[in-house]
Amino acid sequence: MENMSRNRVIFISVVVGVLGIVVGVLIGYFSRGSATGEFADFLSEGDAWVAEALRDEISAKNIEENLRYLTSKPHLAGTPEGKAYADWVVQKWREQGLDDAYVTDYNILLSYPDRDSPSYIALLDENDRERFRTAVFEEAVDAETEQWLSSIVQPFNAYSAPGTVQGDVVYVNYARVEDYERLRDQLGIDVTGKVVIARYGKIFRGEKAKYSQEFGAAGLILYTDPEDTVGSGGEADMYPRGWYLPGSGVQRGNILNSAGAGEPLTPGYPAKDYMFRIEQNETDALARIPVHPIGYSDAWHILNAIGGPAAPAEWAGGLNITYRLGPGFDSASWARSIKMNISVRNERRDIFNTVGVIRGRVEPDRYVIMGNHRDSWTLGSVDPTSGTAVMVEVTRAFMEMVKRGWRPRRSLMFCSWDAEEYGLHGSMEHVEEFHRNLASRAVVYINIDTAVMATYTLRPKVSPSARQEFREATKRLPWPETVPEGTTMYDVWRKRSPNDPDDPDTQPRIDLLGSGSDFAGFVHRVGVSCIDLGYTFDTALGVSSYPLYHTGYETFHLQADIIDPGFKFNRGIAQLAADLIRGFADPVILPFDLMEYANYLGVMRSDLQAEYGTDLTNHGISSDSLDSAIRNFTDAAQAFHSRLQGIDKNNPFEVRMFNDQLMQLERAFIDPLGLPGRPFYRHTLMAPSKHNKYVSDPFPGLTDTIFDAERSADPAPAWREVAKQMSIIAFNIQSAASTLMMPA
Amino acid sequence: MENMSRNRVIFISVVVGVLGIVVGVLIGYFSRGSATGEFADFLSEGDAWVAEALRDEISAKNIEENLRYLTSKPHLAGTPEGKAYADWVVQKWREQGLDDAYVTDYNILLSYPDRDSPSYIALLDENDRERFRTAVFEEAVDAETEQWLSSIVQPFNAYSAPGTVQGDVVYVNYARVEDYERLRDQLGIDVTGKVVIARYGKIFRGEKAKYSQEFGAAGLILYTDPEDTVGSGGEADMYPRGWYLPGSGVQRGNILNSAGAGEPLTPGYPAKDYMFRIEQNETDALARIPVHPIGYSDAWHILNAIGGPAAPAEWAGGLNITYRLGPGFDSASWARSIKMNISVRNERRDIFNTVGVIRGRVEPDRYVIMGNHRDSWTLGSVDPTSGTAVMVEVTRAFMEMVKRGWRPRRSLMFCSWDAEEYGLHGSMEHVEEFHRNLASRAVVYINIDTAVMATYTLRPKVSPSARQEFREATKRLPWPETVPEGTTMYDVWRKRSPNDPDDPDTQPRIDLLGSGSDFAGFVHRVGVSCIDLGYTFDTALGVSSYPLYHTGYETFHLQADIIDPGFKFNRGIAQLAADLIRGFADPVILPFDLMEYANYLGVMRSDLQAEYGTDLTNHGISSDSLDSAIRNFTDAAQAFHSRLQGIDKNNPFEVRMFNDQLMQLERAFIDPLGLPGRPFYRHTLMAPSKHNKYVSDPFPGLTDTIFDAERSADPAPAWREVAKQMSIIAFNIQSAASTLMMPA
Repeated sequence: MENMSRNRVIFISVVVGVLGIVVGVLIGYFSRGSATGEFADFLSEGDAWVAEALRDEISAKNIEENLRYLTSKPHLAGTPEGKAYADWVVQKWREQGLDDAYVTDYNILLSYPDRDSPSYIALLDENDRERFRTAVFEEAVDAETEQWLSSIVQPFNAYSAPGTVQGDVVYVNYARVEDYERLRDQLGIDVTGKVVIARYGKIFRGEKAKYSQEFGAAGLILYTDPEDTVGSGGEADMYPRGWYLPGSGVQRGNILNSAGAGEPLTPGYPAKDYMFRIEQNETDALARIPVHPIGYSDAWHILNAIGGPAAPAEWAGGLNITYRLGPGFDSASWARSIKMNISVRNERRDIFNTVGVIRGRVEPDRYVIMGNHRDSWTLGSVDPTSGTAVMVEVTRAFMEMVKRGWRPRRSLMFCSWDAEEYGLHGSMEHVEEFHRNLASRAVVYINIDTAVMATYTLRPKVSPSARQEFREATKRLPWPETVPEGTTMYDVWRKRSPNDPDDPDTQPRIDLLGSGSDFAGFVHRVGVSCIDLGYTFDTALGVSSYPLYHTGYETFHLQADIIDPGFKFNRGIAQLAADLIRGFADPVILPFDLMEYANYLGVMRSDLQAEYGTDLTNHGISSDSLDSAIRNFTDAAQAFHSRLQGIDKNNPFEVRMFNDQLMQLERAFIDPLGLPGRPFYRHTLMAPSKHNKYVSDPFPGLTDTIFDAERSADPAPAWREVAKQMSIIAFNIQSAASTLMMPA
Repeated sequence: MENMSRNRVIFISVVVGVLGIVVGVLIGYFSRGSATGEFADFLSEGDAWVAEALRDEISAKNIEENLRYLTSKPHLAGTPEGKAYADWVVQKWREQGLDDAYVTDYNILLSYPDRDSPSYIALLDENDRERFRTAVFEEAVDAETEQWLSSIVQPFNAYSAPGTVQGDVVYVNYARVEDYERLRDQLGIDVTGKVVIARYGKIFRGEKAKYSQEFGAAGLILYTDPEDTVGSGGEADMYPRGWYLPGSGVQRGNILNSAGAGEPLTPGYPAKDYMFRIEQNETDALARIPVHPIGYSDAWHILNAIGGPAAPAEWAGGLNITYRLGPGFDSASWARSIKMNISVRNERRDIFNTVGVIRGRVEPDRYVIMGNHRDSWTLGSVDPTSGTAVMVEVTRAFMEMVKRGWRPRRSLMFCSWDAEEYGLHGSMEHVEEFHRNLASRAVVYINIDTAVMATYTLRPKVSPSARQEFREATKRLPWPETVPEGTTMYDVWRKRSPNDPDDPDTQPRIDLLGSGSDFAGFVHRVGVSCIDLGYTFDTALGVSSYPLYHTGYETFHLQADIIDPGFKFNRGIAQLAADLIRGFADPVILPFDLMEYANYLGVMRSDLQAEYGTDLTNHGISSDSLDSAIRNFTDAAQAFHSRLQGIDKNNPFEVRMFNDQLMQLERAFIDPLGLPGRPFYRHTLMAPSKHNKYVSDPFPGLTDTIFDAERSADPAPAWREVAKQMSIIAFNIQSAASTLMMPA
């Protein structure tokens, strides 16, 4: 019994002891759990429910209401209405509960027409009588345009020189370098001292002004040819019934050639009040000849009066006339001279960016940035207000997620830019003021300008290393309508915009980042990976932009009734933007794919070879260093991604190290010395082409110098410059490869 | 008994259970401890024992042996001996067990005298007979110099133009701008086409060459005046018995004016084989006149023969003659003309840096860098080999710590530079090749060039934000000898080099970073905080450098027997370097003090006001923007440091965020557009002065343009340039302040 009892006591003791230990282990384990939980939180992937909740939260109705409000008044940069809308955006963000929302300002050289003495172009008879004058305003065609057309800014080209020019007229097609060279070399026509008339299209209007000035023209008239803006349709397809341009519609727009320097009087530095200003005559950015835009109804009168030989067949546009070159006038016309009477004044005014912030939970010092400009030439229901309407809904949806307990791993920054229409000023001054912070902290910049100009397909421009994530986002989202091509954005986009039309397995087409919207400062000055979003039309239509671009017909009606009834596509872009923001803000490892950059280098190398390979060989310029650098970069990117596969995701510093390398890769292509002759374009792999800023040439430093060398009167030093650029580009690629090694 | 027994059972069970729980809690707690321990390891301060162990590990004997070996042969850049020493350093680091050690190479334009047809300067009589020639070699004065003086490179000025010049001679004092202006404006002497003779000292010899060329001289003779190199002593103080210069000793040295562009044929880019080279006549860095150095024994013959008026009293040096200005010769002399016969050739050769790495435990992507150049003109026992001998001992000591279980939190990188003597080439090309990695990863660069030229006091040059930690390090270390001023380095340094001699509580003097050694590329091109270390002499001696600088008398004997017998001070510098490296590599929070930068801005502002305040006011240039920017920066730095006080040290991402801001602050003062006219000097707060590259003017962009404006023939635009620089500097300070905010 005593033995029994002792055994029992031992037995009970053991049981109790074991139980105690078990309880203790559990208590001990979980008592320490809080600390570990905290660390785990630093390294968690974010809430999985957010992706879908965010998508569902975005409301077409809200976007519609935003747009209705934002198109209810003109909001040109530098005007009280422009400022009022800046305040509205900040107010909206404060209501939505963003962690911070504020306005920043710059004092910028802008340009305005004189309302009291409006610009016009006249045809004069032999007695110097003005017998025809172009219209000052576009024609009202419905109630909305009736209400606004006389109070929005009249058609003009910002930064035109003011003044009067009278004389002969020459038709110069698109006013490209090749057009002027053909006139001079093959057609025997000298434009010196003449007024020239050119159609809009193919290249940036500021380049047309620059070339016209360089080739000696005294003034430039820009018009929109119906070939470009009327399509195959008739009256029924024209605004206010359809998407196409009536004859009185005029494309406004700036003609600044800033070459990436930002505001023209403070090149390279933010236009704050205290900043030194150069004089207007100290910059080449400003035109020294008058430039003025007109509609095709007015252009008909001028073009029909021009005499001289018939223009080459491919120079003829869509007007029902014989396109003649001039100079001078047709004998059948009473016109004997043309006069440009241009009253446009450059003037310094304040502009206003607004910035909204949702602070990151774990890495507040990493910024995922979305931006969109707010100023517009007219009511701007397409450019840019569809984008603004979308952005304000995107911020609302994110704040709904915050209210449900989510917070992004990294900070989100939303920027509503001013004065983009005048030359990307708001975003560029922001970049100039904050370039150091952007260089060390910006993960990606996502731009929306014209969110929905049409609904046929997506037209993304994306930095190579962000392309994979971009495609993934489009696979996660539905196409806004039921269509035969598929259900996801990716499906429809791929079918409608194949990269290679002959390959059924092709990826969808993604373009490079040239210039033309607010991403330019981010990518070309600082080297931030960028994404530019929007829906576009079918290129088979043959138009160069949406026909009502920058005209008085960009009304709420256009967006709400003609382009996107129900705002489904506006909602689609908002969903895509939100999904991309979340896709870069939340994952522990940034979703950049550096092999895409390696592939892109290969494509550029082939393009260079195809276009200039023979030239280079003929001038004894070896591409060996370039090839070797691309190989080294490719190897480094491959090795980097395999190391990334094996990353210890429980090591916060290792996570941050890899992320920093991923984020900094785009920065590695920035050369502080800039491109040859263009110190403010610093990305050595892409730049607005000198001859068409909307596109980017392969290895721009090389293609620019080859272009110059081919035309040079002194070719030996010009080809030496090509050889120099070859080595500089090879070095920059090599140097980018070295950033993928550690330590190095 | 049964009750008792039951009670006992209960009692035992409770005891056992409680014990079980306690044991369990401990097991549970610590079983989870491993994960937490891992995290704790990411955030631990490093082993406390290392500081002392490291200090004790460093051996004077080892440094002595290193120096003995490294001074056993000449090791000029671009020679096989130079390469052999590069290999020796790498070999040494591999033996010591560094994680990585490798050689990198660049192909550089160097400069060598012709051994077969040596350069000389001659005095000629009326029959054009050369009756006096300067020496080709320095005189052997002991066994060591006997052995080497004919095989080390003969005295020359690297990058001198070759050729022969004959004519009159003019004495131009130090060949500074003010000397030439005085000659022209007050003394009425025109140097055009003349040979000029100038004494070494006050400014960089390359600047003397540049000004001589600009003022029209046909050739420049440089000599070391005894006033500067003999002191008060006699024969007994001269080498080989003492520290002072015998009459035949000649200071070698380059006269390159690279303005921070690095190797002269590849400005701004690394001189790799594939890199494009400009032609020698395309750079202003290279002199176009012959320049040659001589000793004071030879100079006596020339100066004594010069005629013309006596030089101003303060132009007279220490030779026992009447210093005359010329031009032409004294009637008492047979000399009638002077001839420079200079055979120096620029030549491209390979140079070799070596890099050694100890990989960081937690943050391998943060580099604490130590560098020292390895090439020397002669045996170089002072410049730079005392530094090399020290660095190789520092790496050994660190590897001993690694063997004992320590590893630095951040990576350590040790760099042994080549071709510093030719113009900082090794380090500058490294900076050009790896500037992206340095910009994103370098914490601090610690330079040792001439570790011990004397043993009187420390002569640190330190970036403002690293000064506090520098002072702390000197407080942790002993002064190498027993002296009355105190026991720590700090005590003695403070007493011997007070910042303000009138203030007993003054801090010790720390200088700015001008140029003159390998830190230049790091601080001026990339914006890496830098520390330059060394012991120096008492300024009361009145010499401008150590007298045997760059002469054939820089032997092992000089360092081992004259300057630092027992190598105590060499050991002291090694300890200081090691302690600083550990001080930046180990702490969780980087020890930068940004308030030191704020204070520094205040000092610079006062200096500017004192020197140029009236000028600025007179020309209507307001300093309000500068004052406002300095106030904003000071506020931002203060706010930053109070936030840093409250940092959550258990949050790895918060730790990294603050560290990044601390590290990046120096980078924030880098302007990619560079200083006016000097695109490769990009630090807006310090730069090698245009008029004396060893020092830095306050706000160099401003002081440079003020200097030019004061001398300008067209002052209005020149003062506009000053106003522009004022706004640019204000902006850069403002922008640096914005990097201390988050998000912004």
